Amino acid sequence: MQEPAYLDPRSGATFPLDEPRWCGPEGQPLLLTDLPGLGRGQIDRAKGSLWRYAAALPFRPEAPITLGEGCTPLLPGEWNGAPLRFKCEWFMPSGSFKDRGASVMLSLLRAQGVRHVLEDSSGNGGAAIATYAAAGGMRARILVPDSTSPAKTVQSRALGAEIELVPGSRQDCADAALAQARDIFYASHNWHPFFLHGTKTLAYELWEDLGFRAPDNVIIPCGAGSNVLGCALGFGELLRAGEIDRLPRLFAAQPAHCGPIARAFLGLPEAAPRPTIAEGTAIAQPIRLPENLAALRDSGGGAVLLEEEEIIEATRGLARRGLYVEPTCAQAAAAFGRLLEAGTIGRGETTVVVLTGSGLKATRRHAELLGLSL
Amino acid sequence: MQEPAYLDPRSGATFPLDEPRWCGPEGQPLLLTDLPGLGRGQIDRAKGSLWRYAAALPFRPEAPITLGEGCTPLLPGEWNGAPLRFKCEWFMPSGSFKDRGASVMLSLLRAQGVRHVLEDSSGNGGAAIATYAAAGGMRARILVPDSTSPAKTVQSRALGAEIELVPGSRQDCADAALAQARDIFYASHNWHPFFLHGTKTLAYELWEDLGFRAPDNVIIPCGAGSNVLGCALGFGELLRAGEIDRLPRLFAAQPAHCGPIARAFLGLPEAAPRPTIAEGTAIAQPIRLPENLAALRDSGGGAVLLEEEEIIEATRGLARRGLYVEPTCAQAAAAFGRLLEAGTIGRGETTVVVLTGSGLKATRRHAELLGLSL
Repeated sequence: MQEPAYLDPRSGATFPLDEPRWCGPEGQPLLLTDLPGLGRGQIDRAKGSLWRYAAALPFRPEAPITLGEGCTPLLPGEWNGAPLRFKCEWFMPSGSFKDRGASVMLSLLRAQGVRHVLEDSSGNGGAAIATYAAAGGMRARILVPDSTSPAKTVQSRALGAEIELVPGSRQDCADAALAQARDIFYASHNWHPFFLHGTKTLAYELWEDLGFRAPDNVIIPCGAGSNVLGCALGFGELLRAGEIDRLPRLFAAQPAHCGPIARAFLGLPEAAPRPTIAEGTAIAQPIRLPENLAALRDSGGGAVLLEEEEIIEATRGLARRGLYVEPTCAQAAAAFGRLLEAGTIGRGETTVVVLTGSGLKATRRHAELLGLSL
Repeated sequence: MQEPAYLDPRSGATFPLDEPRWCGPEGQPLLLTDLPGLGRGQIDRAKGSLWRYAAALPFRPEAPITLGEGCTPLLPGEWNGAPLRFKCEWFMPSGSFKDRGASVMLSLLRAQGVRHVLEDSSGNGGAAIATYAAAGGMRARILVPDSTSPAKTVQSRALGAEIELVPGSRQDCADAALAQARDIFYASHNWHPFFLHGTKTLAYELWEDLGFRAPDNVIIPCGAGSNVLGCALGFGELLRAGEIDRLPRLFAAQPAHCGPIARAFLGLPEAAPRPTIAEGTAIAQPIRLPENLAALRDSGGGAVLLEEEEIIEATRGLARRGLYVEPTCAQAAAAFGRLLEAGTIGRGETTVVVLTGSGLKATRRHAELLGLSL
C-alpha cells in the first residue's frame, strides 16, 4: 500500500502527509488515502484506551496525548421489546465521544510541530479540543457565536482555552475561523481528517467488543457525521484487512428540524433548519455531505429523520433505563424503534446504538423536559 | 471463614445477612464481618466492569444491575515535579465514583427482595442511587433540603427518582430520612455496608492496574469516607488473601472548613463547619468517624486539611492537565503536594490520587472560579 497522504475524495488529488494541512488548496475538505488497518494480532492489549489500535493510525506519534479515552462499555439492553447494545461513549475525559477524535488529531498534529490550534465549537467538539490541548501543553483558541450562553463555555474556559466571542450567527463564526486559519492552525473537528481517524477507533472497539465480529447495524446520531465517517473508515479497513467479511449497515439519525444528510439520503428537498432539542446534531451545512451519503449507501444502511417528540420520548426511555444522556444522542434509540417497526432491522440482528454524550452536558434541556426552571 | 454477617464494629455484635437491614437494633452503623477477598485467579476477566471482582462480594446476585461502572483509567502524571497516578473515577454512568457503591448495593438489595429505596443526597450519592434504581427497575425516593438549587436534582429527577424537598437543614433532611426508613428501605450510601463493598472494588482495581501490586499511597477526597473505608476493606482482603504483602498508606484529604475526620486524626479540637468549595466532602457529622480513623491509622497513613485557596489552585492545576473535575476531588492532588513537601511521601513512591467526580457536575463552581456569572 502507498504511503499515506491527504486525499481530496472529490477530485482524487493527493497531498503529502508530512506537512500539516487541514484542507486542499482550493479550500476543499480532505480525507486520507486508504490505510491498511490492523489485524487482531496488532492490538496493543496492554493499553486500556483507544491507543490499543494505534497500529491503524496514519503514523504513530512518539508521545500520544491520552487521558484514557475509549474502551467504553457496550451494554446489552432492549428497546420496544427487541435486543440492542448501547455503546456508552460518554465514559470519556470530557464527557463525549469527541475525545476519540481530539486525542488522535492533536497527538498527530503535535508530533508534526503544531503548538497552537484554532477550533470553532461551543459544544462537545470545543470541549474535547480544549481538554486535549491542555493535556498536551498546546494553546487552543475556540470561536463561538456571541449569543452562546456562558454555561456552554465554562468547561473549555476552565481547561485554559481562549474563548473568542464572534458577533452574528454560527455561520459567521465558521467564516471567522476560516479567516483566522491563516494565522493559527485550524484543528477543526469537522475539517481535519486526523479527527476521523480518531473516531474510527469506535469501529475497532465494537469489533473487539463483539469478539472480533462486526455488528449487523450501527445507529449513529449524526450532525456533521464524524461517527458515520469514522465507522465507515474503521469497518472499511477491517474489511480490507480480512478481519470481517462484510460491513455493518450504518444508519444516521438526524432531527427532522435539521437533517440535511438524512434528507439528501431519503431524496427529500432541502429545508430551512428549525431549532431542535438535538442541538448537537443541528448542523445545517455539513461539509462532508457527499462522503456521508456514500458511507451510508456503501454499507447498505440508511437514514432516519426524527420529530422532536420522538427524540424527547427516547431521552426519557433511556433515562428510565439509567442512561442519562444528551437528548441529541437519544435519536439513535428512537431511530432503532423506527427501523425495527419498518422491518428494516430484524429482532435477531446485532444492533449497536451509539450514545455519544453525557446528560450532564444538557442539564438545561433535561430541566425543560421536567418542567423545571433553573 | 464464617458465613458473612452484619457486624457492629463497636460492640462486635453480628446479625444475619439474609434479611435486609441498614443499621443495628439501636440504630448503630454496621459493617460486614471479614470476607475472604479474592485471588488474581478469581477475577472474571471477561467483564469490563467492577463485576470482574464479584467473587469478593458477600454474595453474588444472579442479575447484577450494571452499566459498565469501574475499570476507570489510571493515568501517569506529575505534580510539583513528582510522579503520581490519577485514578479517573468520573468515567462512570452517573459521572462519579459513587456508581461503584450504588451498583453493588442495589444489586444485592434487589436480590434480597428490596424494590423501593430511600436515600438522602442532593449530590453524587443521590444521582448514583437514582441511576441504578432506574437501571434495576426499582423505585427511589430521595430527600433533599428544600434550599437545594433545582439544577442539583435535575439528573436524579430525569432518571425517574421521586425527589422530596425537606424544610430545614441538611441534618433535618437526614432526620426525615431516618423517620421514613420505617416505611421504605433506607439504601443510604452513608449507612449501608453493601455500599462500601462496592467502593472497595477501587482497591481491587488499583491492585490489578498496577500489575497485582498495591500502591505505596492512596490519597482520597474524604467526606463520609466511603472511599477510605472501601480501600481499607479491599486492600485488607487482598492482604489476608496473601495477594499483597502490606497495605498502602491511605490519606484522607478534607477541607479545613469542614474536616471532622482529619481534625480528629490530627488531634485538633472540633470546629463549627464553614462553607467550602469542596461541597462533596462537607460532611459535618460522618457516621463512621471512628472506623475512618482506624482505617487511616492501620494503614500507616494520615489526613490533610486543605484551605480553600489550595483547593482552588489544585482545581486549576488539574484543569491545566486536561483533567476537568469537581473542586471537591482536587483536594487529593493538593494533599499530595503537601505530603510531598512535608517529606511524608517520597518522590520514588507509587502514589494514587483519586479523582472522584466530573467537572460537569460543578459547572457553577467552575464558573465562579472563572469570574463568570451564569
